[in-house]
Amino acid sequence: MHTWKDVKDLNFPLSKAQRLLLMTDGSITTLLEVLTGQPVVVKTLLQQVVKADVERAVELDIEEGDSINYRVVVLKNQNNDSPLIYAESYTPIARLQKEFRHDLMKADVPIGRILAQRRIESRREIRLIDTTSNDELGDLFGVPHSVPLLSRTYDIISHGMVLMRITETFPLTSFAKTDIESP
Amino acid sequence: MHTWKDVKDLNFPLSKAQRLLLMTDGSITTLLEVLTGQPVVVKTLLQQVVKADVERAVELDIEEGDSINYRVVVLKNQNNDSPLIYAESYTPIARLQKEFRHDLMKADVPIGRILAQRRIESRREIRLIDTTSNDELGDLFGVPHSVPLLSRTYDIISHGMVLMRITETFPLTSFAKTDIESP
Repeated sequence: MHTWKDVKDLNFPLSKAQRLLLMTDGSITTLLEVLTGQPVVVKTLLQQVVKADVERAVELDIEEGDSINYRVVVLKNQNNDSPLIYAESYTPIARLQKEFRHDLMKADVPIGRILAQRRIESRREIRLIDTTSNDELGDLFGVPHSVPLLSRTYDIISHGMVLMRITETFPLTSFAKTDIESP
Repeated sequence: MHTWKDVKDLNFPLSKAQRLLLMTDGSITTLLEVLTGQPVVVKTLLQQVVKADVERAVELDIEEGDSINYRVVVLKNQNNDSPLIYAESYTPIARLQKEFRHDLMKADVPIGRILAQRRIESRREIRLIDTTSNDELGDLFGVPHSVPLLSRTYDIISHGMVLMRITETFPLTSFAKTDIESP
């Protein structure tokens, strides 16, 4: 299990807001709404059904060639197009209930909100917290390519199976000026 | 469903840390560990099995007279006895798996950690976010009786049943100096 200590190994001084974004096992949308003080919405950049390759099949515990919903979104505030978080998710289609499938594939609804509205019981398991660099994502966030990106990958598990594997990414310069004093 | 806006109705200017403590649907222990930068432990103040009265039976959807585990704890940092959060929980005994029952009744393990370690799938539903006053709790936190207390009550739901109803309380003066800047 990952704990608050893990993010100390990233070799960057992280703000508490950044630590929360990397460590929480709750809804990222709720967290972003509190951090920004504004409603958060999803903007879908890409949404397609793909076939699982070997590696992806192992990760999701499905068969090679099984259908996966691949969704790329940014979470952003309603009245501001600057992305807060970039997220990619992989969902085995066969594991989706009909209503969840509609919310996920046809509508711009944040995952945490789908889970709450559809009353889906689950748990989240963080697989990886890491730093990365990616010029395209740097451009998306409007930061220089030299700025490291913080990322985490976690599974949402329901009925003992991976319902969804999600990777969330944001620049080291986002949520950085956050100063949360201890009580 | 409660959203970030609900806590605006409390008529106090709340810090973002306080809003997170009231709004999160994730582990409070993880949140407290990030906010304080220290490991968080449970100190059990009271632990007893009680019979459900009518009101409690309705809340938990059990029969009057059914056994409930009533647990009163504070969450605190390992090397500091000041309470961070005071929490009362009610758990229908019959709904507890054996291992969960042991962790809850015999050991000082935070709920979020039990759920994660036992791989229990659940969802959290916030029932009430409110302010209250209570002289004994004020004394416990070492604050004047005039300081309002912030509290929230939520259910942890598993297999469609309330596994646990929890009320968490902390003074308006805790986590108050928190200044989280938006990105």
